Formats: sequence, C-alpha cells, structure tokens
Amino acid sequence: MTQEDLKIFKEECRKLASLEPLMSLVRNDLAQVNEIILERLQSPVVLIPEIAGYLIKSGGKRLRPVLTLACAQLFKYQGKKAVSLAASVEFIHTATLLHDDVVDDSILRRGQASANQLWGNQASVLVGDFLFSLAFELMVEQESLPALKVLSKVSATIAQGEVLQLLHINDLAMTAEKYLEIVYAKTATLFAAAAHIGAIIGQGSIEDEQNLKEFGHNLGMAFQLIDDILDYTADEKTLGKAVGDDFREGKITLPVIYSYQVSDHNEKEFWQRVMVELTQEEGDFDHAYTLLQKHQAFEKTISLASEYIQKAEQSLFSFSVSPIREALRETCAFVMQRKN
Amino acid sequence: MTQEDLKIFKEECRKLASLEPLMSLVRNDLAQVNEIILERLQSPVVLIPEIAGYLIKSGGKRLRPVLTLACAQLFKYQGKKAVSLAASVEFIHTATLLHDDVVDDSILRRGQASANQLWGNQASVLVGDFLFSLAFELMVEQESLPALKVLSKVSATIAQGEVLQLLHINDLAMTAEKYLEIVYAKTATLFAAAAHIGAIIGQGSIEDEQNLKEFGHNLGMAFQLIDDILDYTADEKTLGKAVGDDFREGKITLPVIYSYQVSDHNEKEFWQRVMVELTQEEGDFDHAYTLLQKHQAFEKTISLASEYIQKAEQSLFSFSVSPIREALRETCAFVMQRKN
Repeated sequence: MTQEDLKIFKEECRKLASLEPLMSLVRNDLAQVNEIILERLQSPVVLIPEIAGYLIKSGGKRLRPVLTLACAQLFKYQGKKAVSLAASVEFIHTATLLHDDVVDDSILRRGQASANQLWGNQASVLVGDFLFSLAFELMVEQESLPALKVLSKVSATIAQGEVLQLLHINDLAMTAEKYLEIVYAKTATLFAAAAHIGAIIGQGSIEDEQNLKEFGHNLGMAFQLIDDILDYTADEKTLGKAVGDDFREGKITLPVIYSYQVSDHNEKEFWQRVMVELTQEEGDFDHAYTLLQKHQAFEKTISLASEYIQKAEQSLFSFSVSPIREALRETCAFVMQRKN
Repeated sequence: MTQEDLKIFKEECRKLASLEPLMSLVRNDLAQVNEIILERLQSPVVLIPEIAGYLIKSGGKRLRPVLTLACAQLFKYQGKKAVSLAASVEFIHTATLLHDDVVDDSILRRGQASANQLWGNQASVLVGDFLFSLAFELMVEQESLPALKVLSKVSATIAQGEVLQLLHINDLAMTAEKYLEIVYAKTATLFAAAAHIGAIIGQGSIEDEQNLKEFGHNLGMAFQLIDDILDYTADEKTLGKAVGDDFREGKITLPVIYSYQVSDHNEKEFWQRVMVELTQEEGDFDHAYTLLQKHQAFEKTISLASEYIQKAEQSLFSFSVSPIREALRETCAFVMQRKN
C-alpha cells in the first residue's frame, strides 16, 4: 500500500468506525448467548461461577461470539445452534484469557484485577480447564460434526501458538514472519473459526465457508496488531488493562520487531536490556515509545494491519448487500480505529 | 463387610492379582494407541512433543486407555475407533496430570522430576491445554456423537472435581462423603467414561453401557483409595513418585479423615499443625503414619475400597464368560493389591 492509499483508507475508516450497527443487529441473539453463559456457569462448586462470572461479566466486546452470530445471519439462519456455538466460542476465549494471565503473570485484565491476582494461579488454571470443557460439552450438544471439527482444531492451534509465544517471549531476533505465525495461531484462528462456523450452521456453500474463514482470519490478524500498538499508545482507563504490559513482560510484538531491525548499536543494547534481561528503570517505557516513533514502527504496523483489514473486507464482497454485511464491513473499520 | 468377609476377599485377591492377562489381550491395540499418541504429539513447536513425550513415555500403566480397549473387546469390536478413543482418554489423563502437578506444585511424577519442575509452570499449563485440545480433535474425528457426549461431559466433571479439591486442600473438617465426591469427579468419572465408550463403540445395549460405566466408576473409586494408602505406605522406588506427597501438601485423603474423626485433642492439634498450618517437622510423617495405624484408618479405607471393587466385579457378571471378562475381573483384584 502506498502512503497515499493508506491515507485514503484511513480517511474511509474514520467515516465509518463504529461497532454499533453490528451490535444492534445481533443484540437479541447476544442476550441469549449471555443467558446460556450464565446458566452453564452454574456449578455446585461455587468458586467456578465466581471466577468465570467475574471475568465474563467484566465486559469485553464479545467480538468473537458476535462474529458467529453475525455470520450465521448472513445466511438468514433462524435456529438455536448459532447462539450455543457462539457461547462455546466465548468460553474458549475466556479459558484462554485465564490461562494467559497465569502464564504472563498479568495484574490487570479489562481494567480490573486479573483472576489470578484475586484467586491465585491454581484456581485460574482449573477454572480455565472447566471453561474449555464446558465449551466442548456445549458444542457437542449441537451435534454439528463440521462445526466440531473446526472448533476442536482451533483449540489445538491456539495452544500451540501459546507455547510458541512462550518460547519467543524475550527473543529480539524473532522475525516478523515468526511473530505473525504466533498471532495467526493465538488470535486469528479463533476469529476465523467463529466466522467459519456461522457459515457452517447457516449451510453456506464451500466458497462461503472459505470466504468467512478468510474474513475472520484477516480481521483477527488486524485486531491483534492494533492491540500491540494500543499496549504502547492507549489511555489505560479506555484500554481497560495496564498499558505497557507487553513491554514489562518483555513480550516482543510487531512494533518492537520493526524498530529493533533498524536500530543502531545503542538502541539494540537498550532493547536487549529492557526486553531480554528485563532490567527496566523509570523512563524506559517512554524511551521505548520514542524509539518506536522514531523508526515509524507504529505506522508500519498500522500499514500491515490495514492490508489485513482490506483483505477481510474483500472476503465480504461475494455476499449480497444487506444490513448485516454492511455492519461487518463497518466492523473492519472499527478494528482499525478502536481505542480499546 | 464383616472382618471375616474382608479376610476371605483379600485372600481371593491374593490368588489372582496380576494385570498381565488384561495387558496381553490388549497388547496389539495398545501398541497402536502408543503409535497414535506419538504421531499426534508431533508439532512444529518442539517443546510440545518434548514435554508431552517425557510424561507419556515415562510409563504409567495406561490403565484408562486399556479399559476402553478391553471393554470394546467384550463386544468383539474390530474397528479402529477404540484405538483412537483410547488415545484420547490417555491425552485427557496426561493433560490432567500436567495441570495437577502445577496446582499441587509436585516435584516427582512417576519417579522422575515432574514436567513443571523441568520446564516450568507456564509450559506445563500450555502443553496441558494442547493435550486437552488434541484429545478433542482426535475424538471428533471418530464421528461418534454418543462417545463425544460422554467424553466432553467427563472433562467438565474432572475440572469441577479439581476445583473442589483445591477448595478443601487443608480442610480437616471435610467429611468422608465430600471426599468421595471429589474422588468420583477427579478419578472415577474418567475410568467410568473409558469403560463406557468401549460399550458405545462396541454397540452394546443400554444395559451394557450402564454396566460398564458402573464397572469403571467403582474400579476408579477403589483405585484412588488405594492410591491414598500407597502415599503413606509404599516404597518410593516401586511407587514411582514421592511417598508422602499428599501429607506434605496438606491434602486430606480418606485415611486422614477416618483418623481425624476419632482423634483425641492432642492428635487433632497435630493434624491441625501439619495439614492446615503446614508447619511440618522431621518425624511428623512417621507420627502421622503411626496415628493412621492406631485408628485403623488404612483398614477402613481398604474395606471401603473392597466394597467398590466387589461392585465393579458384579457389573461384569452380566457379560458371558470370556478371556477378556476374566482378565477384567482379575484387574479388580490387581487394583486392590497393587504396590504402585
């Protein structure tokens, strides 16, 4: 994408960027998803609904289940399976967050103390396991083997991505390609699956399935890259989690990779100290921010995210114009512009 | 059971106790299970086969997958699904062990350093997640919705049991009933499911399914109670894990519950100090052992385990006499007599 194209594209995004149209179209279905979630969280072991409920009720955009609901709506799907499968997708996501926070030793999640801070790592691990199992139970009940195949595969891919990320957590030599492989596995596959199963239960064609899978995949890639930027640039209150988390944990994200690649000797030593040796002093985060600015790391990341988003949008063009299709297109713009 | 009955029963067990007949009947199938396990563990993320392979290759009796294979053989099942579902069962079990060791902070597992000791808690959590996902992927591929329903339900039950156990980890006031509820959820349900799916894919009757589920359930209950005893009485090398693990972690097991219930004031204070406050001194483990002996806690636990085992055996009587049925009966005796 040329600088000019990028400028035009960003202008386009600014005009449209809201999640509201999508949310209003799936509102009723999403209310049912929330009901299923609360109902399934009931357990005689009260710690389970307590922890899981804390995390699930604390908000989040429910973007993944919304994708399933919206994609099913593209096919005018009327049955009950979309709602249950969407709840499964949210359970998988929440389980991943719980285990992620344990692995990363995170303090904040969605602006509140993370579950591992409040209840300890042990409970977070086990309640995460429970949510994974709940997700599978719920999806098995829908008796859709094709959807089951997609969702069981995605869980394995997410776990592999998490392990891969752990292996590269302080690896400044990581290439952009390797990083994007992690993002694909950790984040984009669940977006892809969420959209894909909408097409499966909506009985779309093989081509429809492929298009929505691609749509979810590219949307997810962009979503994560914007997340990486927000970790350095966002307002902590708006973001709902601690800014600089990635930095403090030495988690190498795309902006850092881009900046490191063109760093001089002193700058490389700086990154080495703060990200690998993890000896961080006051002012280091600000200095990192300055370096990322200096080397256009944010711009480059936004540019790549824009490419993904354009691909995502293109995958929607094979579907006839409808309010839900336009709302999905607007979601693409929203992802590029989001502040949290 | 009267003391006399128990004596006769133990005598019976002594005559028979070997796992060998069962193992020799499922040997070929089990070799295929092992092949599937190794094949599925392949991952471009090399840490995954490294950790999972370490745990899986380190042995263990493979009792759970063997149950699936053996129960399918009761129906002369010839297909490939038993082998794959048995591998799924072993993956679920291994995933549970990995997360268990993180939660319990265990040092030894099957006589070797536990995975969390070698690779850290983070990797153990994530590789456990990967194995859970692998289990589901593999079982979804078999396209048996009834087996999927059983296995997805069991995972949720195991996770609930683990959380319940965590909540009661230093709870001396726990009743035997509550403890048995935990054992049921944590251990017996997977034994029950392993046997049950053998009947499902063997196309047994509803009654057959029920009988094998009951068989697995009661076998699993006995298995765990004997495990609780071995943690105090076994030879460390034979057991393959650290003796006294439960004691050191303040994990209240049935022998302790039985002993505590009839303890005098001083003894109660002792248990309070070592199991709740976890301030343990040299000699405490031996003193605990003495108290357990004094109050016949081991005998009472063995007596209850014997009741479960007798029920397990009874569930087999509806099947016609065959080498595999007799081998399963002998497994009951083995569980009562095992030293590791």
